[in-house]
Order: sequence, then structure tokens, then C-alpha cells
Amino acid sequence: MIAVLKHGTTPEQTDHLIAWLKRMNLDVHISHGAEVTILGLIGDTSRVDMELLGSLEIVEAVKRVSEPFKQANRKFHPDDTVIEVGDVKIGGGNFVMMAGPCSVESEEQIIEIAKAVKASGANILRGGAFKPRTSPYAFQGMQGKGIELLLKAKAETGLPIVTEIMNISTLDLFADIDIIQVGARNMQNFDLLKELGKINKPILLKRGLANTLQELLMSAEYIMSEGNENVILCERGIRTFETATRNTLDLSAVSVLHDLSHLPVIVDPSHATGKAKLVPPMAAAATAAGADGLIIEVHNNPACALCDGAQSLTPAQFDELSKRVAKVREAIV
Amino acid sequence: MIAVLKHGTTPEQTDHLIAWLKRMNLDVHISHGAEVTILGLIGDTSRVDMELLGSLEIVEAVKRVSEPFKQANRKFHPDDTVIEVGDVKIGGGNFVMMAGPCSVESEEQIIEIAKAVKASGANILRGGAFKPRTSPYAFQGMQGKGIELLLKAKAETGLPIVTEIMNISTLDLFADIDIIQVGARNMQNFDLLKELGKINKPILLKRGLANTLQELLMSAEYIMSEGNENVILCERGIRTFETATRNTLDLSAVSVLHDLSHLPVIVDPSHATGKAKLVPPMAAAATAAGADGLIIEVHNNPACALCDGAQSLTPAQFDELSKRVAKVREAIV
Amino acid sequence: MIAVLKHGTTPEQTDHLIAWLKRMNLDVHISHGAEVTILGLIGDTSRVDMELLGSLEIVEAVKRVSEPFKQANRKFHPDDTVIEVGDVKIGGGNFVMMAGPCSVESEEQIIEIAKAVKASGANILRGGAFKPRTSPYAFQGMQGKGIELLLKAKAETGLPIVTEIMNISTLDLFADIDIIQVGARNMQNFDLLKELGKINKPILLKRGLANTLQELLMSAEYIMSEGNENVILCERGIRTFETATRNTLDLSAVSVLHDLSHLPVIVDPSHATGKAKLVPPMAAAATAAGADGLIIEVHNNPACALCDGAQSLTPAQFDELSKRVAKVREAIV
Amino acid sequence: MIAVLKHGTTPEQTDHLIAWLKRMNLDVHISHGAEVTILGLIGDTSRVDMELLGSLEIVEAVKRVSEPFKQANRKFHPDDTVIEVGDVKIGGGNFVMMAGPCSVESEEQIIEIAKAVKASGANILRGGAFKPRTSPYAFQGMQGKGIELLLKAKAETGLPIVTEIMNISTLDLFADIDIIQVGARNMQNFDLLKELGKINKPILLKRGLANTLQELLMSAEYIMSEGNENVILCERGIRTFETATRNTLDLSAVSVLHDLSHLPVIVDPSHATGKAKLVPPMAAAATAAGADGLIIEVHNNPACALCDGAQSLTPAQFDELSKRVAKVREAIV
Repeated sequence: MIAVLKHGTTPEQTDHLIAWLKRMNLDVHISHGAEVTILGLIGDTSRVDMELLGSLEIVEAVKRVSEPFKQANRKFHPDDTVIEVGDVKIGGGNFVMMAGPCSVESEEQIIEIAKAVKASGANILRGGAFKPRTSPYAFQGMQGKGIELLLKAKAETGLPIVTEIMNISTLDLFADIDIIQVGARNMQNFDLLKELGKINKPILLKRGLANTLQELLMSAEYIMSEGNENVILCERGIRTFETATRNTLDLSAVSVLHDLSHLPVIVDPSHATGKAKLVPPMAAAATAAGADGLIIEVHNNPACALCDGAQSLTPAQFDELSKRVAKVREAIV
Repeated sequence: MIAVLKHGTTPEQTDHLIAWLKRMNLDVHISHGAEVTILGLIGDTSRVDMELLGSLEIVEAVKRVSEPFKQANRKFHPDDTVIEVGDVKIGGGNFVMMAGPCSVESEEQIIEIAKAVKASGANILRGGAFKPRTSPYAFQGMQGKGIELLLKAKAETGLPIVTEIMNISTLDLFADIDIIQVGARNMQNFDLLKELGKINKPILLKRGLANTLQELLMSAEYIMSEGNENVILCERGIRTFETATRNTLDLSAVSVLHDLSHLPVIVDPSHATGKAKLVPPMAAAATAAGADGLIIEVHNNPACALCDGAQSLTPAQFDELSKRVAKVREAIV
Repeated sequence: MIAVLKHGTTPEQTDHLIAWLKRMNLDVHISHGAEVTILGLIGDTSRVDMELLGSLEIVEAVKRVSEPFKQANRKFHPDDTVIEVGDVKIGGGNFVMMAGPCSVESEEQIIEIAKAVKASGANILRGGAFKPRTSPYAFQGMQGKGIELLLKAKAETGLPIVTEIMNISTLDLFADIDIIQVGARNMQNFDLLKELGKINKPILLKRGLANTLQELLMSAEYIMSEGNENVILCERGIRTFETATRNTLDLSAVSVLHDLSHLPVIVDPSHATGKAKLVPPMAAAATAAGADGLIIEVHNNPACALCDGAQSLTPAQFDELSKRVAKVREAIV
Repeated sequence: MIAVLKHGTTPEQTDHLIAWLKRMNLDVHISHGAEVTILGLIGDTSRVDMELLGSLEIVEAVKRVSEPFKQANRKFHPDDTVIEVGDVKIGGGNFVMMAGPCSVESEEQIIEIAKAVKASGANILRGGAFKPRTSPYAFQGMQGKGIELLLKAKAETGLPIVTEIMNISTLDLFADIDIIQVGARNMQNFDLLKELGKINKPILLKRGLANTLQELLMSAEYIMSEGNENVILCERGIRTFETATRNTLDLSAVSVLHDLSHLPVIVDPSHATGKAKLVPPMAAAATAAGADGLIIEVHNNPACALCDGAQSLTPAQFDELSKRVAKVREAIV
């Protein structure tokens, strides 16, 4: 970390600052220039409060030279992390396809969809049991019952399950779940992240609506710093001024994250766009951008053809998407 | 709620949709126009999934005519809510000044600051015991011990206390706290909101970094729908492209929220700007905009003059701010 | 267009509004519901000021049912527009590759790069002569001399030229240029757009940093409404809170624009990301998303190897990108 | 300017970079640290392309120590600029009130409003003759005729005039106009800025919808670098994700700009909020934040009571706003 001192800083002020930094167990390397003085801080700067330092009267600017995350950092872990879930490998050149309904609605529904997406090449089943909803009056998911039905679908099809946790008090219910998802709204629920760091199950960590990629990696670091290194990062769109799509899918995130970290990166085009019509092209684009996998909403409700227009694809549309994605995948590797 | 059907929708499709809507206990009022057909949905539309409806193939657009929040809605509760905390009244033309350090650091520190801010006119003491930090390696607050010290400061000065909760499992520690704060990152931690709706203590609900004002009111609704009507809304800056300030303080939020809701609205210029120098003008501006109060960071650490530059004001700076705010308050009422 | 009147609007107020709307040559279709009254406005609503209408005391909401753009609208022009530039076709299933340096620097430079990109499959040469720069002290381009050098490169290689105009007073210099580019900062320079609508040359219109897709189409409409229908739309990243990339490339724009309009849509991953390393994956992603072409910065300066790291690719990197893009293109068509 | 080189940079690479920097007439001060090497660049760094430098393979980070703007910079011009327009002083502790209609519509309208706002304390008359409109089909202003009518209103009331220019080719029409406005969409129309730098008339420069404060100052620098030092900055809201207001008024901009620059800063709450109801509280807030003045839309059309609801205030509402603003102004000085 580098701190640039303002022109006119007195030697006393500089000494005062250096003494303070040394009390944080940092070595300080001083460089006096014509216009400014630069302090190079050597040591474990991950504990330094950059904002505080930057806001001091005598400090012109503070700049991190090294990233504040360690365990998620590719510099200290050059090889791709490969996470194994049953026979499925995630990361390190493998491509994973997670698919399923937004919410589990019934045993029949989830099993039927599970069979359909498996037939089209999905290797993980997704489905929501606990649903974070903006309105307290909206359907909050089948909760514990939903988890049970997901496990029945797993028994029936052999597909591993990914589903979202909202509250650490429900963790026991996730004992047989294969991958626990942390939703975008909980990306900085630090207490939840810490608890999930204490178990030994893969965590699918979604980027928050307004969170930078560095913040996403810091949240991965919260999980990893407690011992759980099985973190899958997920780009799912950020909030911008554009209203033509629900969120703006930031596909450059895939390369940026791969560059900074060894963790696998998957993409969720369903939530990002909010429109079924946009899911197939964005799935192809995410694949071409180098994503390690996709998570896609698929729904099949013959009794209610009305749902076809939502952000969920029909099994037939998913089948087509899956074929196109496979071809794009071949084109880039 | 109004749904506009696309040109070319068949009578069968329209009937199918109407049947589906009626199964949700809604009355449907149909209006056939030259170019479009409009459905007016009458009844409890708060359970209707607008995005789903809007994404149907035959639906051109969906528009809410009434807001999806009820208990927080001024339409159904025209008078300002006034929340009483000891002798302090919040809302309804009263002005509250909350002040104190970002984190509780020691008994000496918190009591000294409490006395200072009280002398300058603060009527609530703020101080963080549990601290949400982006990095797992940063100071996480004194936690339970911090709560104890806040209560000592309360005993010493008589000032009621506001402090942040991050996890419902720590709720017991807040038994003697006067106002529980939900931080920006937890604004959509719906399970936490629901639990706080079951107690009878004022909740200070901060707007999330990337949340709309309607989402803020929906989160207030989560608390209120469980029975706790004592919610104080807090604008604390939103995330934008501008980097000159930490966040962009959205002062028009004060009037918009007052218009939509009967709940009190306070402003936090310290976190919004991230710079001590900007706190006094933004405090004056928030007051002129009609805020029901302010929450200001004040720190006093004679042993470490270095901290003066941060977003915290010194007690002397706070005293000046407090006087200026009082004058602006007089000018507008 | 639909206007929803507030509950409690008097018949006099309604009549007053209807009379006003009729003076704008609109037919008004009234529908009285239980809670609200809805006015359907029939006729040429493109001249109606939606914001003014929506801000009236008695109006709850206004909603366009039809888009405010006409000539750019796919509804009235279902077939893809195909723009021909020499032998090169843009749009309608054809794929165009524009490449070249950010700025023209010398005859040698531009001709060498032109030959290199042509050999790698580019079919249009790009190069800046007039450069919009944030700072008045930065290099503003070679201007008229730059145009001359581009035309020499065209003579040498046969590649058509695309280059940016900043000021209508320089239009004469563009007489032999094949495609005139309007940069992101000028997307709403309406006077410039109108003038470019009066000539008969293809216009490459870049999306502004903070402009919605609808605004982009309205700017295309400015050009088209004056008679020039040869508009190529270009997504080049929008400004968001994320700082890991210069801008956030919004690839869902490709599908959204194709859906709304018949105009060709190309993507500029170089300016969007600002980093050479991110250009190849984003070029592949844009292709997979269905873009009609790419515009890529390529630079070759053997005397200054330092430039390699910028957002420009070397000719060798471009050659590799070009091959990968061709493979992705095959995978999706 | 400081450039931090990556760990592992070879001496040859470092020498190569230094040679390149020296060719730009910069002195380079080298500081070798344990982890990084830091180059301090001394001299006129305003011509250095920071993005290019930062994107080089061997460069970890680049940081400006001094701002890239000079003539607008308070460091080199500590005293507030005071701009005189007739008897009206703008900046340096003076407070200016500009008011008038969005568009000039008729002689009667503009003169009536001019008289009304003058009576309520306005000292500059605003009114649009050339109107930038998103749609080519919307009213584009009365243009030259509008300028004439503004000058009639000036003759009648003595109020100086501010009105917007969109195109340098119309400059002759502005000969008797007192202040020329550059609208938000033209903030980076650099050719227009340069031409306005060559005349000797005050320029009201509005911040672009998605422009940082530094970019605003760079645009002021474009004008000033050509010789015209009479620039008035104007905050008018930025584009964010929030849709409750048309834009988000960034009032902290007032203090930030005052800190960085000696130029006067005024605020436009009418365009920022887009709603008449929000204009008075935001006008009071802007005043409390330390703005040097306001620009407010006022409209008076007794024949069309429908317009009352728009972002324009009635003369009576403006009169009330003006009184409140005067009281707030007294409270803070």
C-alpha cells in the first residue's frame, strides 16, 4: 500500500503518521520527492482502513498495490480451483450447466423438470425453497418442504442440488443439499458468510446488485478465511440506469474475476435479463466470454401456459439453448 | 393494477389470462380500445407478481396504480407517525439529532463523546458494537462488550442509544438498547426484518446502497407487517458512478418518502459523503430539505490526532454543525 | 399512449384534460373503472410530452403503448436493414469487422496497420482524425491531415474508411469517407444528427455513456427523420459504479436493439473495457450475442513497444481474435 | 503523477519506460521499494494519457497527485471568481436567482413571467429558445424568434438573460444575450466549448447526466484555456438507478466543486427532480449546501391550468420559494 502525503506536510506530522502505521506492525519505506512524499507500507496491509488513511488531512491519496483478498487471490494460488460435486467438476476447464425452476412448487413439477433438464444436458438441478421477495405479501417459497422435494428429485434423477439459504438458523435443512447458494441480497450478510465458512460444502456466491468485483472477492474471502475454500462465484447482473433489462449483465466480470482469482465463475442470464427471450443469446455470450458454467431458469407447467413468457425457458427452449452453448463452447476451447 | 394486452391478442388468450387472474381472487375490468385491450385488476394486487405478468407474451405492459406497501403508506395513514424514545420524539415536526462514534472503542471514549455530543444538543447516542466490514480481516467491533459500554454511557448521560444489529441471534443483547439499526447491507435481509417486526422497539432502517425508495418502503413493510410500526427511515447515500464522494446523498429522498409514507425520515451525511469536510454542509442541506433528524459521526481521540481527518467530526466541529442546523431548522418551519 | 387518472378526479378536470388532448389531434378513448379512469390516446402520440402529461396533478401514470420512434422501428419495417459500403454488407446476417488504430499518427503507421488488419480479415478500416478528449491539453488528433492519410490507406488497401466527426463545419472533409462515426459524447448533439440526416452516407452512431437504448433509437430517429436511413448502431459500454473496467459492456443491448429495430448493431469491446486483455473474450461474447459486427482497436508501433499494453491489440493479437470470432460466428448461425 | 511498477519489472523495461516519459519532457524520480518501484513524474503531466500509462503491462497503477485542470483550479487561483452581469454579481458570497419558463412561447408569456419573477426577487431571466429534445418530433423551441422575445423581456424588465446555445453556427443570435448556457448533453461537445472560450461572455456550464465533477471541471478548462474565464458551473442531477425522481440531485457537488475550483456553482432543482413539488425543498437544500445561486423553472399560463403540475412552479409558488430561500441563506451566512 502506498500513501502519498500532501505538499506542505511537516516532518512532525510525517513522523506522527509513521509511528501510527508502525503500531499496526507495518514497515514504512519513505521516498521524498520534489512535490510529494510517498510512504510505502510493507507488511499485512489487509487490516489497514484505507478510507480512514485516505481521509487524513495530510494524505493526498492512498493506493493499494496488492489486493486485500488473499485466499481468493490467484497470485497466491495460480491454479484454477476445481470443485467436485458428485461426478460433476466445476472450474479448471470444466463446464457446468445448472438448471431448474425459480421456485419448487410441487413434487410433480420439480421431478418433471429435473428429468427434462437432465435429458438436455444439465448436470446440476436448481430450485428455490426459500425465496427472498421484495414484498412481504409475495410467495416466500415452500421452505423446508421445498428442500424435501428437491431431495426427492435428486433421488429420482441423480442430479446434485443447488438451492438458496437465507438464514443460518435453517442450515440443518441443507445437510443433504450439494451446493448452498448465497443470493445477491445476502452477498454482504457477513455473519451468514462466516457461518458458511465453517462447513465443508460448496457455496455458490452471487454478486450483489450494486457490488464491485472486488467486494465480491472480499465476500468470498469471508467464507474462505473460516476454512471453506469451495466457493463458486456467480455474475447475475448489476443495477444501472438502463430499464430495458431487469439488470445489466456484466460479462467482462468473467475475465476480470478469472484474472484476479482461481475460483470458478458462472453466469446467471435468467435473473440478469428478466426476459426469456434474452436468455439464450446471453447464455451463448457468457459461454464465449469464458464462463465456467451457467445457471438457467427452466419451468414447465402445462396447466398454465401463461408462465411461458416469464424469464423461465420451457424445457424445449432449454434444450435448444443447451445445444447452442455446447457449440460455442467447442468454438472457443 | 393495469395490464395492457398487445395488439393481436386472441379472445382465447385474453380469456385464459382473465381466468388465471380470477384464480388469484382479483376482479378484472376489461376495456377494449382501438389499438389495445386494457385489464383493470381490482382487489388485493399486492400478491401479484408484476414481473411475471409483464413478461407474458400477450402483455404489453403492467402498471401499478396503487403502491405495493400498505402499512407504510400515507394514503392509509395520513398523519405523521411520531416515535417516542424516552423523552425524545421522532417525526411529526420534531427534530432528532443522533451523534456518536463509528465504533465503540473503550468506556472512556464512549462516555467522553456522549457527554460532548449531549452538551452540543444531541438527544440520541449512536455507536457501533457490531460492525459490518467489507474485509474479514478488518476490526469487527467490540460486539457484546460494546453494547455494555453503550449502556454505561446511557446510564451516565441519560441519552437513549441507537446501535446496529447484524444477526438475529444476538437480539438478546439489545434488550436495553432504545433503537435498533438495520444497516444498508441488511436492508433486504428479509428474515432479519421479519424477526424485528415481532419486537416492540423502534427500528432505524437504512436505505441500501442500490435500493430504490420503493424497495426501502417495502422493507419497512416487512417489519410493519409483523406488528412493529416503529420504523424510522434513513437516507445514507446511494452508489453511483461519481467517485468524489463515497456515495451520492440523495436528498430528494426526504420529500419523496414524506410524500409516500407517514414514517419519519432522517439523514446520515457522514456515511454518504465519507469526508468530514462535507458533513456540515450536507447536514444543513438535509435539514433544509425537511429531514426529521440527522445521524452524525463524532469522534474524540486526543491520543490520536490522526483520526481528525476521517468522516468523523470532532466534538467542536459537531457543536458548530449543531448550531448551524438549528438556525436552518428555524428558517424553514 | 395510456393515461391513468387519479381516484377523485372530477368530471370537469377530466373534460378539461380531454379537450387539451384533442387539441393535439388525438382521439381519446375513456374507460371508467372502479378505482381509476383510464384514457387511451389514439393518433400520433410521438408529439405528446409524456413527462408533462405525467406530472399533471390529476394524472397517476402515463404509459406508452407504442414506441416513440418510427423509422427505426422494426414494427413498421420488419426486415433487417442491410447497408452496403463498397462490397461490404452490414446487417441482415452479414458480419463486419472494423479495425484500426485509435488515432491516425502517420502515413506509415496507418498504411501498415491497414494492411495487417486486412490480412487478418478486417473489411473496414477505422482510425481517428478528430479526437474528443476530456482534457484540452491532450492530443486532439491530426484532424484534416488525418483524413488525408486514411484516404491514402484506403487507396493502398481498398478498405472502406470509418472515422469520427465532431463538428458539422468539418463535413466537407468527409466527402470521400465511407462511414461517418458519431461518438458517444455526441449521441445527443441533435443539431449534428439532423445535419447528418441530410446526407446520404452511412452513419455509425455510438451509444452515449449514460443513455438508454430507447434514447439511442431516438437519436437514430433524428438522423432518419431527415432522410438518411443508413444508420449503424454501436454498443460501447455504459457508465456504472464498477471500476474494474472503464465502462460496463451491455451485451444484452444487441438482442434488445434487434428486437426493437431493423438497424444493424455492432459492438466496440475496446472502448468498453479499456484493457487489451479483455477485448478478445468480449469480442467473442458480442459475436455469440448476435452482433452484426465488431469495431476493434489495433495498433502497431515497433518503435514503441510500450503501447502494447493499452486497450489496443497488436496485429498478431487481432489475427487471433479474428479467427476465434469466425469460429464463434459459425457456432451460432 | 505517480506510476507504480509491478513486482518483477526488469531494469530494461523500467529504463525503456523512463526514456519514453522523458521524451514527453517529464522528469522522473525513481524510488525502489521492497515490493514495488515507484516513479514520480515531475513536470507538465496534464498531457500524459493516464489510461495508456496505466494499461502498460509493467504498470500496476497510476495516480495523479495534482489535478489535470489548471485555470479552473483553486490551488492556482485561491480567491472566488466573481462574474458581473449588469448589476448582478455571481460568486464570491453573492447569491443569484435565475428564473423563467422552460421554453419561450410568446411575447405575452415571457414578459408576464419576467415581471412576476422579478417582483419575487429573481435577478436573471431564463428561457429556452433552442430546445434539445430527445425526440425529433417534439417542439424544438422558437429559436431565433425566441431570442428576440427574450430581449424584449429584458428591455421591459431590465433583467439580464440566460439562454441555451446548441450549435456554434447560431452564435450571432446571442450577441445581446447576457449569459450563454451549455446544456447537460453538450457538456462534452468540445468544439462548442472551444468556440465559447473565444468570446467574452459568461458561460453557464451544466454538468452532464453521467459526468463526474472532474470531467465538469475539465470542460470548464476547455472554455478557460481559450481565454474566457467567466464560467458558472451548474449541478442539475445525475442519472442513477432511482426512478422516483427524473435524476438524482447531487448536492455534495456544491462543496466538492467549491473546494476544487474558484468558479461559482449554482443548482438547478427543476430539471434534476422533474417534479414541481420537489423543487422548493431542493432549492432550500441547495442554498443550505452553499450554492451561489439557483435556476428555477417558472411558468404562468392561466389559459392552461393543466401545466401547473409539471416541473415548473407558478409565480405564486416561486414567490414562496424565494422567501424561504432568503431565510435559509440568512441562516447559513
